[in-house]
Amino acid sequence: MATATLTIDLNALVENWQTLNAKSAENVETAAVVKANGYGLDAGRVAQTLQTAGVKTFFVAAAEEGIAVRKAIGSAATINVFSGHMAGDKTVLTEYSLVPMLNSPDQIHRHFADLPNHPFGVQLDTGMNRLGLEPSEWSDARRDVLARSPTLLMSHLACADTPDHPMNQQQLAAFREMTDGLNIRRSFAATGGTLNGAEFHFDLTRPGVGLYGGIPFGDAKPVAHLDIPVIQTRLVNEGETVGYSNTWTAQRPSRIATVAAGYADGLIRAMGADLTLWAGDQKCRVVGRISMDMIGVDVTDLGVVPDSLSILNDHQTVDALADAAGTIGYEILTSLGGRYKRVYLR
Amino acid sequence: MATATLTIDLNALVENWQTLNAKSAENVETAAVVKANGYGLDAGRVAQTLQTAGVKTFFVAAAEEGIAVRKAIGSAATINVFSGHMAGDKTVLTEYSLVPMLNSPDQIHRHFADLPNHPFGVQLDTGMNRLGLEPSEWSDARRDVLARSPTLLMSHLACADTPDHPMNQQQLAAFREMTDGLNIRRSFAATGGTLNGAEFHFDLTRPGVGLYGGIPFGDAKPVAHLDIPVIQTRLVNEGETVGYSNTWTAQRPSRIATVAAGYADGLIRAMGADLTLWAGDQKCRVVGRISMDMIGVDVTDLGVVPDSLSILNDHQTVDALADAAGTIGYEILTSLGGRYKRVYLR
Repeated sequence: MATATLTIDLNALVENWQTLNAKSAENVETAAVVKANGYGLDAGRVAQTLQTAGVKTFFVAAAEEGIAVRKAIGSAATINVFSGHMAGDKTVLTEYSLVPMLNSPDQIHRHFADLPNHPFGVQLDTGMNRLGLEPSEWSDARRDVLARSPTLLMSHLACADTPDHPMNQQQLAAFREMTDGLNIRRSFAATGGTLNGAEFHFDLTRPGVGLYGGIPFGDAKPVAHLDIPVIQTRLVNEGETVGYSNTWTAQRPSRIATVAAGYADGLIRAMGADLTLWAGDQKCRVVGRISMDMIGVDVTDLGVVPDSLSILNDHQTVDALADAAGTIGYEILTSLGGRYKRVYLR
Repeated sequence: MATATLTIDLNALVENWQTLNAKSAENVETAAVVKANGYGLDAGRVAQTLQTAGVKTFFVAAAEEGIAVRKAIGSAATINVFSGHMAGDKTVLTEYSLVPMLNSPDQIHRHFADLPNHPFGVQLDTGMNRLGLEPSEWSDARRDVLARSPTLLMSHLACADTPDHPMNQQQLAAFREMTDGLNIRRSFAATGGTLNGAEFHFDLTRPGVGLYGGIPFGDAKPVAHLDIPVIQTRLVNEGETVGYSNTWTAQRPSRIATVAAGYADGLIRAMGADLTLWAGDQKCRVVGRISMDMIGVDVTDLGVVPDSLSILNDHQTVDALADAAGTIGYEILTSLGGRYKRVYLR
């Protein structure tokens, strides 16, 4: 077998949700964001597991993503759609009981015309300028909208990962200004906001990346573990090069392993120069460029070369890989590829 | 619908294969590499289309990848496996008639023990130090190996994308040294080698990225086209910020569109700062960070904002996106995500 094994620890996922759930008061509901196929880990499996642990509300990015989640969890829980009600969504929203978070006057008109009795929430822009109604649009629409009893009013923080950023308080003030006193459930905090204190929690928090073991939830348990089989090893002499464009030259006689995963598996090519794989507790440096399906690894210092080397484990999390790639753990997770053999621990 | 549409032009794929096929003499077979799920475009569809166009030999990275290709093309064509015969591959190799390219003494022993009458090829290392037998290993093994009539002897160039690199001639000499006079079919050239002249062609060329419209095949027709729906637009004032961490500030009153794709769809986060989307022939700059499911775009100068903006088209190829991300077109292709609606033109 020349495909790597991605092991997904569903117990760690549940524990992460429980820890985040405990950060807010008892009357605050803790939902779960399972967009982008459950941050790459299988939205259906993730949602099913979290439902058993007590999650009653899920969020996806697009209506199409709600289909797999609904099939996995049955009819009991709520599934909200961040991108709202797009043209062509009517059938999917109805058939799979999905609740669009309406983002614009256009979406409001579309929803009231096409699905006048179908539940909906409203997303408000509080300064990120990405999704949601502008304050002036909300002023114009709120009377009609409130008359139809939205299930949720929500917004999203642009700088939650930097707790001291003045943008957080600015957005909080804007959110309160638009929603205080309306007696409708509110949601403002994703993982970052959940960690930043009770004033951001309102009625429902909706952690995403923290559930899957990523920063800004520094105490998260790692959920994804990835082991890559060794195809072969070879001895190279001092001065020999390894991989595309001869970017690495052996400084000593070396044993090089070629392992069977690469950037086509979401191991971002940019991490090549600064990456380590692991044989148990021992580090092995990557040598040369990451190729599409393979990575070269210096295993000279290992007594015995194991059948596989690990790239995601308790020593090296998605955030460590992200540092090597110059990106964020979120992208490492959502890039995890389609060729892995996936094993779910529960 | 808040998912983007990836249109795959199978006519362009065929045309690219035909153009590359015409680069070599008539007695040279032109195969096709369809690993990494056909460079992200669906290995089964790609192989089926190319088979109709005349391709008789396909290459995949791992035995598991051969399953979908075999199912798509039926029993007629050959499917070779670059990673060779790994532990546990016996059943898949047999059941789906896959030909492993044996890479090491271990793989040779395994193959001869487990599948003594099953066809195989041999991969030789000519200096890249990634896959294949070292010259000394080949010396030791060649007598036994040749007695069992391998179907192909192959190697791979480390620097083919730089035609003048001395490594190319060095590897060529090593390949000839190991294989001249054996009267067994040989393959040395992927896309780069195919373009670098007849001395690299031997009996079978095996283009990959060039088929899918990528450099180093500069004259390739674009195969992948990607259109992303606009979720909403908003006016922002001079001085307002857009997206995560407030990285972009409006220098004038601007109209900003939020479109429905992001790094979870393989639009690599690193391209944020230097990326353009297109409304027909008009360029629109990306503003702010690429998020997981969304991108902000400055559409101020458009008369009418269309329902979708294009990111891959005849103006902007996978290599242009790669430049923006600081990577290569190969990674753009193999990162294309699972949420797209895929449309195949033929």
